[in-house]
Amino acid sequence: MSLDEIGERAIIRRIREIVGEPSERTLLGIGDDAAVIDAGGRLLVLTTDAFTEWVHFRFDLISPDQVGEKALAATVSDCAAMGCAPRWVTVALSAPSELSIERVEEIYHGLARGAKKYGCDLVGGDTVSSMSDMTLALTAVGEPFGGRVLARSGAEVGDDVYVTGALGGPMAGLFLLQNAPELTLREEFHDSVRRYLAPEARVEAARILATRFPVTSLIDVSDGLSVDIHHLARASGVGFLLERALIPAEPSALRIAEAFDESIDLLVLHGGEEFELLFTVSPGEEDLVEAVRAETGLSVTRIGTAVDREDGIVLLDECGEGEPLEEIGYEHFGKRAGRAGEENRASGDGEAGTRH
Amino acid sequence: MSLDEIGERAIIRRIREIVGEPSERTLLGIGDDAAVIDAGGRLLVLTTDAFTEWVHFRFDLISPDQVGEKALAATVSDCAAMGCAPRWVTVALSAPSELSIERVEEIYHGLARGAKKYGCDLVGGDTVSSMSDMTLALTAVGEPFGGRVLARSGAEVGDDVYVTGALGGPMAGLFLLQNAPELTLREEFHDSVRRYLAPEARVEAARILATRFPVTSLIDVSDGLSVDIHHLARASGVGFLLERALIPAEPSALRIAEAFDESIDLLVLHGGEEFELLFTVSPGEEDLVEAVRAETGLSVTRIGTAVDREDGIVLLDECGEGEPLEEIGYEHFGKRAGRAGEENRASGDGEAGTRH
Repeated sequence: MSLDEIGERAIIRRIREIVGEPSERTLLGIGDDAAVIDAGGRLLVLTTDAFTEWVHFRFDLISPDQVGEKALAATVSDCAAMGCAPRWVTVALSAPSELSIERVEEIYHGLARGAKKYGCDLVGGDTVSSMSDMTLALTAVGEPFGGRVLARSGAEVGDDVYVTGALGGPMAGLFLLQNAPELTLREEFHDSVRRYLAPEARVEAARILATRFPVTSLIDVSDGLSVDIHHLARASGVGFLLERALIPAEPSALRIAEAFDESIDLLVLHGGEEFELLFTVSPGEEDLVEAVRAETGLSVTRIGTAVDREDGIVLLDECGEGEPLEEIGYEHFGKRAGRAGEENRASGDGEAGTRH
Repeated sequence: MSLDEIGERAIIRRIREIVGEPSERTLLGIGDDAAVIDAGGRLLVLTTDAFTEWVHFRFDLISPDQVGEKALAATVSDCAAMGCAPRWVTVALSAPSELSIERVEEIYHGLARGAKKYGCDLVGGDTVSSMSDMTLALTAVGEPFGGRVLARSGAEVGDDVYVTGALGGPMAGLFLLQNAPELTLREEFHDSVRRYLAPEARVEAARILATRFPVTSLIDVSDGLSVDIHHLARASGVGFLLERALIPAEPSALRIAEAFDESIDLLVLHGGEEFELLFTVSPGEEDLVEAVRAETGLSVTRIGTAVDREDGIVLLDECGEGEPLEEIGYEHFGKRAGRAGEENRASGDGEAGTRH
């Protein structure tokens, strides 16, 4: 059976079986945004992300320095998603040997800009030749902002669920870059394009949330809201009741969807590469909205409530009608590949995308 | 200018300039076998290695589980080369989506076998699709065996220089696999083939050396003795006087060289992927030879002495005649590529292979 047929979640399940149980030095192994390790009493998180040319990026759509900065943002976002500060990053770059040194330098300029922005050190890595496409693999080591690490598990029934920022921008931007590149500079669409080319990791928001509020579970929206809320639900053993009217859509994504007669729900509920934080917190902590806004300028929005597991994950529409929110998102090894040359979009059947 | 033309050392130099100086949390950044980080008073090493199909491995020469175990060994060897125990490893695997899940599982069986052997946990990573070849990028986090980390710098004039094991095996084994695969099972050649397909990281030897002997500098022989001794020399600001007659050659490599009229010097002095430890120690510590042998069965051999930097790196032949030992080794982006489809061998001009 090919990777394509089996799906990424099943691959990870099989890998977990082969790898087996870790030692007592590892508090959390494969299965969250990052591993949690115990280095002589000191908790750290460790996370690796890989990015391949033609699958994760295409140099006709994004510049080398943007690829570098985006890869850095995606990797440190996994630290933020554990309530941790990214501290050290390594880079493994495999590139065709005929590639120009200038392109590699541009990638590193982007990586270095990202590292500076998020306060971490690029401490090494490996540069090797490949016979074909470019692959970037980044690893970040992070330290908890507060005394504890925030995992996907921990949400309790009655908790409020929040998301930072607004959703739909990155995939709307990608849509425009692929289908109407001549419109990408239009001011009304620009924010979505920027969200795709130069996304931000929410490291500062994670710091505020982790140190000042009783956050019970946390993840970043890298595979799409519908997929990542299922990750929280499974890890925490709860269900969720979300209200469609509360879920914030990126305004420029709304305009792009309207202009091209595309579904805004597809972008907002199922679009990936958001790097916004999705989290649960004990009830009555509405102050966090103002706390994050005041320090970072970032909006935070309550979008629903954690409910019993048996109730599943339900999306209430504008009329108050509830529908199960299907887990439809981005998957690297998907059963139904779409968008050749860009991310594969797979229909939800319990095999939707995740990272281990 | 292409990566091929500029050479890997120059690439790393340019990357270091772009990345700039790290924060005070990083004690050693780009430029040794691993970075040294300070996690709240706790020293750790962090290292990343990448392996690409057709360049580092070919599935017609090595099986998937061997690729996994070898990649694991190469990565933990960088921890050993810092005097550290490998503790946690992440894996980024990019593979074509049409690849069979069985092949990926075999790779993970090899990775898991290596992790068990060296006492570390596989704690996660990322599995993504690529449009073409397979790339593995492994990151290891290690803890010092003793109170300190052993870097490439620190050798002093008068120190003895030692190497573990015997050299020449891996490249002799590769030669046989490529040129006379029908002979690989012959008992007299077998050890070299095994050294290529299933190399060992010298983690236990590193523990004994780091905790019981005044080792002053340490590196693993991944690029070839001639290259790695130059790394020690440059980092420590010394020269070396090595005696050809003392340098241990793998017996089966000698037999392969003889049978095929190949140069044994090329294999022993310039062959890569050895993962033996090359180190300097204060004079008069000959006991280390027996200490390592008694606990691990591994031979350790004194091959020369550290001398003044101005004296360079000299190899005394069997007649006592000295010749400069040129830095000729494996380079991924080499000026003169040989062996298409396998590692490139580049002639030494100060650009020979290294990892950062």
